[in-house]
Amino acid sequence: MMIVMNVEATPAQIQAVVDRIEGNGFKPIVLNGEERKVIAVIGNDPYQTRDQYIFLEGVDRVMPISRPYKTASREFLPENTVFPLDGIKVGGDEIVIIAGPCAVESRSQLLETALAVKEAGAQVLRGGAYKPRTSPYTFQGLGEEGLEILAEARELTGMPVVTEVTTPELVPLVSKFADVLQIGARNMQNFALLHAAGESMLPVLLKRGNSATIEELLMAAEYILSHGNQRVMLCERGIRTFETSTRNTTDINAIPVLKAQTHLPVMLDPSHSTGRWEYVIPIARAAIAAGADGLIVEVHQNPEAALSDGAQSLKPERFALMVKQVRAIARDVGRC
Amino acid sequence: MMIVMNVEATPAQIQAVVDRIEGNGFKPIVLNGEERKVIAVIGNDPYQTRDQYIFLEGVDRVMPISRPYKTASREFLPENTVFPLDGIKVGGDEIVIIAGPCAVESRSQLLETALAVKEAGAQVLRGGAYKPRTSPYTFQGLGEEGLEILAEARELTGMPVVTEVTTPELVPLVSKFADVLQIGARNMQNFALLHAAGESMLPVLLKRGNSATIEELLMAAEYILSHGNQRVMLCERGIRTFETSTRNTTDINAIPVLKAQTHLPVMLDPSHSTGRWEYVIPIARAAIAAGADGLIVEVHQNPEAALSDGAQSLKPERFALMVKQVRAIARDVGRC
Amino acid sequence: MMIVMNVEATPAQIQAVVDRIEGNGFKPIVLNGEERKVIAVIGNDPYQTRDQYIFLEGVDRVMPISRPYKTASREFLPENTVFPLDGIKVGGDEIVIIAGPCAVESRSQLLETALAVKEAGAQVLRGGAYKPRTSPYTFQGLGEEGLEILAEARELTGMPVVTEVTTPELVPLVSKFADVLQIGARNMQNFALLHAAGESMLPVLLKRGNSATIEELLMAAEYILSHGNQRVMLCERGIRTFETSTRNTTDINAIPVLKAQTHLPVMLDPSHSTGRWEYVIPIARAAIAAGADGLIVEVHQNPEAALSDGAQSLKPERFALMVKQVRAIARDVGRC
Amino acid sequence: MMIVMNVEATPAQIQAVVDRIEGNGFKPIVLNGEERKVIAVIGNDPYQTRDQYIFLEGVDRVMPISRPYKTASREFLPENTVFPLDGIKVGGDEIVIIAGPCAVESRSQLLETALAVKEAGAQVLRGGAYKPRTSPYTFQGLGEEGLEILAEARELTGMPVVTEVTTPELVPLVSKFADVLQIGARNMQNFALLHAAGESMLPVLLKRGNSATIEELLMAAEYILSHGNQRVMLCERGIRTFETSTRNTTDINAIPVLKAQTHLPVMLDPSHSTGRWEYVIPIARAAIAAGADGLIVEVHQNPEAALSDGAQSLKPERFALMVKQVRAIARDVGRC
Repeated sequence: MMIVMNVEATPAQIQAVVDRIEGNGFKPIVLNGEERKVIAVIGNDPYQTRDQYIFLEGVDRVMPISRPYKTASREFLPENTVFPLDGIKVGGDEIVIIAGPCAVESRSQLLETALAVKEAGAQVLRGGAYKPRTSPYTFQGLGEEGLEILAEARELTGMPVVTEVTTPELVPLVSKFADVLQIGARNMQNFALLHAAGESMLPVLLKRGNSATIEELLMAAEYILSHGNQRVMLCERGIRTFETSTRNTTDINAIPVLKAQTHLPVMLDPSHSTGRWEYVIPIARAAIAAGADGLIVEVHQNPEAALSDGAQSLKPERFALMVKQVRAIARDVGRC
Repeated sequence: MMIVMNVEATPAQIQAVVDRIEGNGFKPIVLNGEERKVIAVIGNDPYQTRDQYIFLEGVDRVMPISRPYKTASREFLPENTVFPLDGIKVGGDEIVIIAGPCAVESRSQLLETALAVKEAGAQVLRGGAYKPRTSPYTFQGLGEEGLEILAEARELTGMPVVTEVTTPELVPLVSKFADVLQIGARNMQNFALLHAAGESMLPVLLKRGNSATIEELLMAAEYILSHGNQRVMLCERGIRTFETSTRNTTDINAIPVLKAQTHLPVMLDPSHSTGRWEYVIPIARAAIAAGADGLIVEVHQNPEAALSDGAQSLKPERFALMVKQVRAIARDVGRC
Repeated sequence: MMIVMNVEATPAQIQAVVDRIEGNGFKPIVLNGEERKVIAVIGNDPYQTRDQYIFLEGVDRVMPISRPYKTASREFLPENTVFPLDGIKVGGDEIVIIAGPCAVESRSQLLETALAVKEAGAQVLRGGAYKPRTSPYTFQGLGEEGLEILAEARELTGMPVVTEVTTPELVPLVSKFADVLQIGARNMQNFALLHAAGESMLPVLLKRGNSATIEELLMAAEYILSHGNQRVMLCERGIRTFETSTRNTTDINAIPVLKAQTHLPVMLDPSHSTGRWEYVIPIARAAIAAGADGLIVEVHQNPEAALSDGAQSLKPERFALMVKQVRAIARDVGRC
Repeated sequence: MMIVMNVEATPAQIQAVVDRIEGNGFKPIVLNGEERKVIAVIGNDPYQTRDQYIFLEGVDRVMPISRPYKTASREFLPENTVFPLDGIKVGGDEIVIIAGPCAVESRSQLLETALAVKEAGAQVLRGGAYKPRTSPYTFQGLGEEGLEILAEARELTGMPVVTEVTTPELVPLVSKFADVLQIGARNMQNFALLHAAGESMLPVLLKRGNSATIEELLMAAEYILSHGNQRVMLCERGIRTFETSTRNTTDINAIPVLKAQTHLPVMLDPSHSTGRWEYVIPIARAAIAAGADGLIVEVHQNPEAALSDGAQSLKPERFALMVKQVRAIARDVGRC
């Protein structure tokens, strides 16, 4: 941590900062810049005490040096985290394609879609039984009935299932049916839920909040990892910006940034990150070209009749085309 | 709802849209613009079916006309919502000042601060027992012990108490101790929590998410109102933008916009919306000048030793100065 | 244009709006929604008169239907604009790669880099002689001397030259040396400059402002096109968002959105859109995967000694690797 | 400047950084943190050389310590800059109110409005003769004729005149007519224009770009100040964010932040920062409550017929009400 002093800070003010640092058990080093003094604070995580210095006379600002996440950081664990999910290796050479409808709407809808996406090349099935919706007046999901349908689809297709959990008390129930717990963007900082997902020891797909920084995403992962649950996939799904021609702005930069800063697998959801089916295929290709480990894509047999997110869902035929194109690009970047 | 057709849309494509509208039980009116056709869709909430039209050939886009919130809207309930909280009238002529520490840290800390803010002119006490924190490695609140200390402070000072609830299963417990349930910015779209707070029938202080639009804030209020719980205060607490010289950007425009669009009381939290104690007083004054119904402010006897948010907490003396200044401004704008 | 009335608007208020519309020479159509009245305004560009209605009693808001750009729109000119630049076809099947240093720093620096990027596969040379810089205390470019060096590089390599022009009075001078005029992000709404570039009839590379919407970018292109100058390339180069781990956020969605909305060629600048050389190659690949018509990339022989933008410049060897990878991806998406 | 090394940086890598620092004439100090090494670089503005270190092996990142602006900084000039403008003292105790139409549309329009705003309490007249417009198809201003009308209004009313200059070659002409040169938000980083305005030695009203940081605004001021022209007013006029219910988001925090960081006078433009006349008065009051030195407000006799910005213009009667309210608040905060 660095404490930057004002240009006109007095020796007595500097001494007061030094005394406070020592009183907290850290070691101060005063640096005499051309313009001002800067005091380095040496020790184990001194940034926890930052607020103490802000109020002292003559202090301009306090800057952290270390990043606040540890277990998620590639600095401390340089090797990629790779974990099996049925026969697939998440984070390995092969890119992972997760697909299915936004919401489980009915038994026939889910089973048909599951078969269709499997045939088109998906390896994992997605589908929501509990839906967080902006309006209380819209479809909120089938709940436990939806979970049972998902389990049946797994039996039928052999594909593992990803489904969202929205509140800590649902974790035990959802864990009985799901292979991967999804934590949605709106819940990325629902810390009680992160703890519960961490304790479940199931794999977790953690979506980035639409206004969360990359650092905050990694801190949220840290909540899960702190329970010893290492099987976390991070998922970029678009951030909120001033641009309104798409539902969100795909932060494609987040792919190489995350690959550099963490060892965890990194996915992209081009359905939510664009909000329009016309843009899903180009952005899916871009994600793999940028180095993502996989995709999660909304597919619906009949998007115009979908109960949610129809406008951003691919039909199975177009999804099949997407799979073909992204696998070709995967090979160009040394994946498969 | 308006369906905007492409410039080159054919008569057959237009007919297909018209047929679909009628099939859904709505009435289409085709408007022949100079440049293109637009089809108005008349009926009760046709926007629910919007995704059906996006996929039809010749459709450029679909635009809503009605706003999605109803119960929260001033259009449908023109009179200000005013409700009593002990002796105070929230949303009435008098501005309401809520103050206290970010977190309950100890019995002595809270009781001393409670007495100090009361003497300085606060009418309601705030203090967090359950703290959502970005990092799992920092202080997470005293929990139930904190609630008991808050209850003691209420006994001692006579001030009603606002405290945060972070997960639905805590609502019954927190409701036993609190006069007002606070839903924090990170939980603004935690829909299970909104439902639980609505069912509690306690007054709710609902904070705007740091990247939530004003419309989304009103939709979140709608979740609470849909349970018949009308006692909701909305709270602007800063949004996330590209500017980094303050922790958040106070969206001061939100004050007059909310006052125009909803009948619910509107508060501002200048501590979170700036993140620096130096800026709290000017922004508190600005809020009242802009028409806010009240303030919620972090005050700490000894901010440099605070376990959270010290940098944005006022000392009691400065808080007393703030109260004096904002009450003067309140009178200038016809409040008290 | 649609004029949305308040729920409680009176018949007299509606009549006043109708009268005003007719007085302006447009045709009103009153639509009786379930909830409120909406008045469609039919005619040639009625949105120009929008401010007149905002002030009338009973009006809630005014919504445009048509997009404000015409000449740039694919609706009015469905075929891709393709134009030759020496032997290359910009906007055609082959992707175009523009490369060179941020700034012309010296004769030897530019000539060496020009030869290196040509050998690595670039088709067009970039290099700035007039540099807009955030600080008045940093290197501002070589000016006319830089232009002469660029002309020499063109002689030497046969590559056409792109260079930035920063003010209208420089357009005649720069036009003598450059094959393509670049208008930088900070000048995207410098309308005097857009007019001057339009009049020059030279090809223009127009960069998106870092907080410009896609619609504003197309409106800026409209300034150039309004002079009959059709040879405009649009260039995404990152937008400003809350994320600070990269210099800008690459708006990769803008690639398919622009390809859908305009017939003009669309480029991406991964150097500025990331700000870090480590991320340039992944994002260059993503751009081509998403459907961009080309790239503009900063390359420097010795980036650590560059006078500007060194941190985001590729060395020639890495640039050669990038060209190889992006050309492979171009083939996957049906380009070359 | 601080160079932060990777956790696993080797002694040889650290030595290479040290050697480079010394080779550049600066003094390195190696700090041994618990987690990693950090190298402080001591000297005069070492951040100029930052790009050199980014590329060295083992370097994680480079952080500046000093702020890049100097002449504008309160650290180096603690006293408020106060300068006379006719009889008014800009930056002094009295708040300054600038008002008038967005654009000069005709002689009668401007003269009537000038008289009206003077009577209502304005001290300075605004009006645009050269209008930067998003669309090339809308009214672009009266040009020199507009300047002559402004001069006549000054004769008539005795008020000094602020008008916008959009390109460097217009500075000499506009300077003949204007008392204050306005540089608009879109031109905040038009560096040629900033230089020309600096050289003119006239007072300058510099508006913040809609996506410029506070630091960038101060750097732009530095361009003007670097010519010895100290008479610069900074003007917040709203920034671009994700919120769309207002035209821009008023960054009210910028008022106390700028007052803390610079000695220059700070104004706010509530017309552009909200875009709706209904919100202008509350935000004007908020600005003065937050500590602004003045306001610049659009007033039109007949806003519904305005050629630009009608929706955000006050009628003279409402402007008079605004003046009365803001002067009352000015007294509450120790101004007049």
